[in-house]
Amino acid sequence: MTLNPADPPFLTALRADLPEAAFRAPEPRYLEEPRGRWAGQAAAVLAPGSVEEVSTILRHAHAARVPVVPYGGGTGLVGGQISAEGPTPLLLSLERMRAIRSVHPEENVMIADAGVILSDLHEAAEAAGRLFPLSIAAKGSARLGGLLATNAGGVNVLRYGNARDLCLGLEAVLPDGQIWHGLRRLRKDNAGYDLRNLLIGSEGTLGVITAASLKLHPQPAGEGTALMVVPDPRAALSLLALARMHLGEGISAFELLHRAGLEFLAETMPETRQPFDTMPDWFVLIDIGLARGLDPATALETLFAEALEAGLVSDGMIAQSEAQRAAFWTVRETIPEANRRIGSVSSHDVSLPLGAIPDFIVKGAEVLAGIGDFRINCFGHLGDGNLHYNVFPVAGRSRADHLDDRDRIKRAVHDLVHEMGGSVAAEHGVGRLKVEDLERYGDPAHLAAMRAIKAALDPAGIMNPGAVLRGP
Amino acid sequence: MTLNPADPPFLTALRADLPEAAFRAPEPRYLEEPRGRWAGQAAAVLAPGSVEEVSTILRHAHAARVPVVPYGGGTGLVGGQISAEGPTPLLLSLERMRAIRSVHPEENVMIADAGVILSDLHEAAEAAGRLFPLSIAAKGSARLGGLLATNAGGVNVLRYGNARDLCLGLEAVLPDGQIWHGLRRLRKDNAGYDLRNLLIGSEGTLGVITAASLKLHPQPAGEGTALMVVPDPRAALSLLALARMHLGEGISAFELLHRAGLEFLAETMPETRQPFDTMPDWFVLIDIGLARGLDPATALETLFAEALEAGLVSDGMIAQSEAQRAAFWTVRETIPEANRRIGSVSSHDVSLPLGAIPDFIVKGAEVLAGIGDFRINCFGHLGDGNLHYNVFPVAGRSRADHLDDRDRIKRAVHDLVHEMGGSVAAEHGVGRLKVEDLERYGDPAHLAAMRAIKAALDPAGIMNPGAVLRGP
Repeated sequence: MTLNPADPPFLTALRADLPEAAFRAPEPRYLEEPRGRWAGQAAAVLAPGSVEEVSTILRHAHAARVPVVPYGGGTGLVGGQISAEGPTPLLLSLERMRAIRSVHPEENVMIADAGVILSDLHEAAEAAGRLFPLSIAAKGSARLGGLLATNAGGVNVLRYGNARDLCLGLEAVLPDGQIWHGLRRLRKDNAGYDLRNLLIGSEGTLGVITAASLKLHPQPAGEGTALMVVPDPRAALSLLALARMHLGEGISAFELLHRAGLEFLAETMPETRQPFDTMPDWFVLIDIGLARGLDPATALETLFAEALEAGLVSDGMIAQSEAQRAAFWTVRETIPEANRRIGSVSSHDVSLPLGAIPDFIVKGAEVLAGIGDFRINCFGHLGDGNLHYNVFPVAGRSRADHLDDRDRIKRAVHDLVHEMGGSVAAEHGVGRLKVEDLERYGDPAHLAAMRAIKAALDPAGIMNPGAVLRGP
Repeated sequence: MTLNPADPPFLTALRADLPEAAFRAPEPRYLEEPRGRWAGQAAAVLAPGSVEEVSTILRHAHAARVPVVPYGGGTGLVGGQISAEGPTPLLLSLERMRAIRSVHPEENVMIADAGVILSDLHEAAEAAGRLFPLSIAAKGSARLGGLLATNAGGVNVLRYGNARDLCLGLEAVLPDGQIWHGLRRLRKDNAGYDLRNLLIGSEGTLGVITAASLKLHPQPAGEGTALMVVPDPRAALSLLALARMHLGEGISAFELLHRAGLEFLAETMPETRQPFDTMPDWFVLIDIGLARGLDPATALETLFAEALEAGLVSDGMIAQSEAQRAAFWTVRETIPEANRRIGSVSSHDVSLPLGAIPDFIVKGAEVLAGIGDFRINCFGHLGDGNLHYNVFPVAGRSRADHLDDRDRIKRAVHDLVHEMGGSVAAEHGVGRLKVEDLERYGDPAHLAAMRAIKAALDPAGIMNPGAVLRGP
């Protein structure tokens, strides 16, 4: 089935059915992506102001077989928002749909348009005395629709789940223009197939999310943060188990960090204050939020004392103020920027069964040693089994020296992850970057079902063609 | 597209490909259901011993267009497991697949066959020092496959979520016999469409779940239970909000109960000890589980004192022993049996936005008063917005006196639920009982997508025809 470009007659027909405000020039910012890997194309950028306008656009596109690429904040790391080939698409930006439609503090629910920026969701929840816990580095520009379409994760997944777990209902437009009014505020609803979770994580290939009903949480009464030095990743896992015994669901984040991250900070941002006098090989950042009646600092001290006795930690710092908490988090959040400045040869967003992580780290280093001499910065959301496994040149060399190694490294790391029961698309999704990986590592029955579902819901194949599944 | 009955030649062909042990006589127990509403039919009961045998059965059925009804513990309340009309189906029971395949305490993961009984899952988790929190009244006979196929809820959803939220991965057989090997132990995996959540809650209409990878939780260090008398449902909601401020995620269950339940207990089971000297109109059962460092009884006392001051409660009892906790729970768990003994005219498994519940209870009583003179027992999982709204004859009359009122009552209650943004299939699913309700109240785009997905994954229409969606 062939697609057609969004040519002038098509755009003229669209203009007849849409207000002028819905049309945007295809400025360069819409056609770039953070990794600089793709240059996108678009015949027009459409910024509809309502779900009805989204429906109008998709009806036209469906009838004319014109591709549509949904666009949120443009922060995706796998090229899901960029169409670089095929007939010129429409780019459909949700940027004008940015209302918080309603907040229901007594229900712990908030309903928001897909174009709302994540940090605005945080503020709206906070204004109602509640917490919207989804948090990622790009929170100042990522929009709700994209966060849901990619099932975003971030630092609080351990406690609150990913975007999927924070969504109660959706309003969305299906590829033929039908509007699904599914903005329910219900915690239990078994009336039919789970279309919500099918659209979440489908990266714009099955429809356009226009609004969502979101779960809010109580704000923890007290929060605390600690850095603890662990002898190795296996001890970090045991420390996580111990922390769970102590603190139950109170652990908001449990991040594993490696010496390489601190070295990269020292190398690229020497002005950043180092947390330790002597850089440890491995350490963890633990963030907790507790209900009334427990003091977070005391709870972390008790945990530390027991972990010290058990040989799981050798050193540690417990934040004594909000400023110190923020400083600990700055270390964690600055490492990705330090990575960028060093320039990775290859970076991997992978997840593994928790128990397999220590072995994976050992085997990964062995596999890479067989390819060449590299520095590895392996860090991430240990509590979720989600590692950012990034490979860098040794000091004095640059990524340009290793262009020929990239594919080999990627294949070796991904093969290892797959063998150990992991996922090579843990948190950032498939986009256009990992379509071949999905074909290689995906379960054949799962892929067959995905293709059948795609053909059933989007028979013309207009929605984000080439993302997730190979294009027509 | 017509289906064919499982006739003798078909069964002969199946016998050639399956071991004798896979064949069971269609005993009456397979053809009955708890409500006594349907009498089922089956040409044969097949009890495969492995996923490969399930695949063999579906391949045959797919090729011959023979209907297949998956069967778990037979405890479903909406007739999803009973085929009463159409060409005689195969009944596919998972009862022989009951292995706990592996337990990974350090990952909080357990992998189990679909035929494992819920209470056996509880025991396996406990033996590993962990908790599998899904719990429903039928835990002694309900099987994992059915719990997932219906996305079962129960009393701990508030804290731990429903069956969907406790599942990390599935092994399943698609309608054409393809095996999906999706038993991942990953907390983050964005590699492709969410087939897991599509199968969960699809009530056997899109395939057969044969095993699942399940989330375990830490066992709470201390548990506590209280009964608190509230002036009305609105106060119960405020008490829930206050409890969340105090206890965060520590609240495992928050059940609203009505005087009618106590009266029915007194009427039908006078030997049951009544919890209150004077029956209150409304009361709640609060169950909490806390991490180390907090005493549950003290936490409940603090909550009660503050709630008393705020006028949210007028009386209460906090369990001082495990025996007392069990006694409080017995009251809650015996009410459904008391309901059965009284004999409801109509019973409804509905959910509502939390904030709408007080109004719903008032309006529901008004609507019913317009139909006749009834007793209402409205109780359930307030924390989840899930009410069991059951309508009974007044004393001296019986359900047989109201047979003509049933449809009118059902329609009136369901219309009200729908108007108020609720679901008429909250916890028990659609099955065969609520197919028309789904058509009436379901969103048209959602239904269209469901039908497209069903046709795409099960083009022959063999999987549980007539459940969820109207049969071919």
